[in-house]
Amino acid sequence: MKKVSLLGATGSIGQQTLDVIRDHSTELELVAMSVGDNLEKTREIISQFHPKVVSVKTKEACERLKAEYTGDIRFVHGEEGLIEVAIHQDSSVLLNAVVGSVGLKPTLKAIEAKKTIALANKETLVTAGHLVMEAVDEHNVDILPVDSEHSAIFQCLQGEKAKNVEKIILTASGGSFRDKTRDELKGVTVKQALNHPNWSMGAKITIDSATMMNKGLEVIEAHWLFNVPYDKIDVLLHKESIIHSLVEFHDSSVIAQLGTPDMRVPIQYALTYPDRFKRQQSAKLNLAEIGLLHFNQVDFKRYRSLDLAFTAGKIGGTMPTVLNAANEVAVASFLNGSISFLRIDELVEEALEYHTAIMQPNLETIEQVDQETRIYVTNLVKEYLTKL
Amino acid sequence: MKKVSLLGATGSIGQQTLDVIRDHSTELELVAMSVGDNLEKTREIISQFHPKVVSVKTKEACERLKAEYTGDIRFVHGEEGLIEVAIHQDSSVLLNAVVGSVGLKPTLKAIEAKKTIALANKETLVTAGHLVMEAVDEHNVDILPVDSEHSAIFQCLQGEKAKNVEKIILTASGGSFRDKTRDELKGVTVKQALNHPNWSMGAKITIDSATMMNKGLEVIEAHWLFNVPYDKIDVLLHKESIIHSLVEFHDSSVIAQLGTPDMRVPIQYALTYPDRFKRQQSAKLNLAEIGLLHFNQVDFKRYRSLDLAFTAGKIGGTMPTVLNAANEVAVASFLNGSISFLRIDELVEEALEYHTAIMQPNLETIEQVDQETRIYVTNLVKEYLTKL
Repeated sequence: MKKVSLLGATGSIGQQTLDVIRDHSTELELVAMSVGDNLEKTREIISQFHPKVVSVKTKEACERLKAEYTGDIRFVHGEEGLIEVAIHQDSSVLLNAVVGSVGLKPTLKAIEAKKTIALANKETLVTAGHLVMEAVDEHNVDILPVDSEHSAIFQCLQGEKAKNVEKIILTASGGSFRDKTRDELKGVTVKQALNHPNWSMGAKITIDSATMMNKGLEVIEAHWLFNVPYDKIDVLLHKESIIHSLVEFHDSSVIAQLGTPDMRVPIQYALTYPDRFKRQQSAKLNLAEIGLLHFNQVDFKRYRSLDLAFTAGKIGGTMPTVLNAANEVAVASFLNGSISFLRIDELVEEALEYHTAIMQPNLETIEQVDQETRIYVTNLVKEYLTKL
Repeated sequence: MKKVSLLGATGSIGQQTLDVIRDHSTELELVAMSVGDNLEKTREIISQFHPKVVSVKTKEACERLKAEYTGDIRFVHGEEGLIEVAIHQDSSVLLNAVVGSVGLKPTLKAIEAKKTIALANKETLVTAGHLVMEAVDEHNVDILPVDSEHSAIFQCLQGEKAKNVEKIILTASGGSFRDKTRDELKGVTVKQALNHPNWSMGAKITIDSATMMNKGLEVIEAHWLFNVPYDKIDVLLHKESIIHSLVEFHDSSVIAQLGTPDMRVPIQYALTYPDRFKRQQSAKLNLAEIGLLHFNQVDFKRYRSLDLAFTAGKIGGTMPTVLNAANEVAVASFLNGSISFLRIDELVEEALEYHTAIMQPNLETIEQVDQETRIYVTNLVKEYLTKL
């Protein structure tokens, strides 16, 4: 029985992780979890999975659940709560599926506690890749990607030598607006942006997919996860999202991982690695039925966020932290109707231009730069709204 | 320095194997080879690669070369010559690229001599898969596929567990006549049949590709090489020959190997496995430039040879020997103008119907059935010609 700690149980990846645990209830067990604001869903999970520790966002929610449940469930909250879930003594693997930079500290603590890390939280590697990979090496733990693209690359690298890798090729669907020119993006609505053609995901990641900041963050993650320089990472437009990513080796051979778009497959792979469990609940790939796969070059002028991500990644230091924090505020501002879609990458660019990179930042510096950037971009949004 | 014995040096695969050895002359060395009828080419290879042993087809050719070359090259001939090359004491790997069932005995002898086998000769596994794999297990040697499809599958299986394999999917280009219906195949010429859209190969294999007997033989080979039952082997029409084959695992994840059509890549992989050497001489895959990949179901009525191969493989015993021998005679008869293209698989079918399978045949039985089938089909061709 593999015991799992899950951060972000009520989110999209969290829910699919619970599906996988439910599908393999004799091999996988949920021992601790953190949840978001949805207490209704939290109660459902508790009654189905009986975790020992549940971490909620606020003290109020924590008190409320404590009053509801008598017995042996321990309720905790806040950042400390996340960490307690992450390092729970019974769990051997932490699946980190919280959204945003709050995912960073629990990951580092879990690495110190020698947990296997199944990572769905992009920000952990984007903002502190150097610290995370240093800790991974020091404590000799496995870090397993959950994201479909990184899982694909990780699968393609099985049985291969790192020295033979020529290029890592991340595929990108192009998001909800892939058939629109940059000019045509001017008036797009939140509802349109949330309508992703291939994947059913959370709101933040769906917007990031439309701007391709999602892919940009994945590029930075891939840089850290697979220890490859940025000039060995390519992005390929592939609208069907069937080839999840590819690795080119220096003998010209290319290995790819394919499948129907179903996050439960890479989630399960991360939870069962180095084995693969049977999965009958996911649709089999039928290429003859699909018939055609399309590939195109990415236009970096059209997908400006991706260009910004490569730039921030190559500069390094605190630049990816600025990229990520600015993007989080910008996307939230778009989702709440404060700014237009095209303003998202403009804000990110302004934040990057404003910041002077600090190299090899420690956790405090990263947190400080993260906060400063959020304030800076929030003010940019406010100024803009005042002008209206 | 890895020392190589090469059977079939003057053929298509042989020539490309020599390219690879030339490209890596500090790591790979040709120590012994067999050649076909082309003595001009043989002299060229000798002057470039200085092998210690050269096996030719006939005693006459052998005497002729002996008279030309004084010094330390040893010339041999016939089946004994092939075996001497295969088990040369200096070589660690035998690349077997002869065409036809003459490739069988040298492979078995090389396995006994503990050589690594890089196998491009289809007939070895098709006619005697059970004997070859038994010998491979007994002598604990590696058997590495050279064929692009099997190399692809072999690469996809690296780092994976056999128990997790759900399906092996061989891709097929459809050959020179893939856009024709069966009816439209009635009047096709040898010249048309030899015009393969993607690969530059020998005449026999190009015709086999047009009938898809090539794929049928590969299905039987895959059955033996990867120890999978026939109902776990699929064939997928993919006209670009970019995805060389795929493996579906039981968690719904699919791994594929891709590349430009260049046999030197799988040849080199077999010679350098488990490492990969750098290869700058082969074109890199550029999917954005290719733009589109097509996939279709195979029509077993259109490609009757493939259906016959599955049937023969499933029955087992001497049936694949009959399939292969009948096909060799039929293809030779087509190439020399004795029969029409559509008559090829009809002859194979007639031979299979005529034969009663002998299970678990030994080498003598296989050879006997092989000879009997050749006589039987040759007579069918003669009868047909007499009637004209």
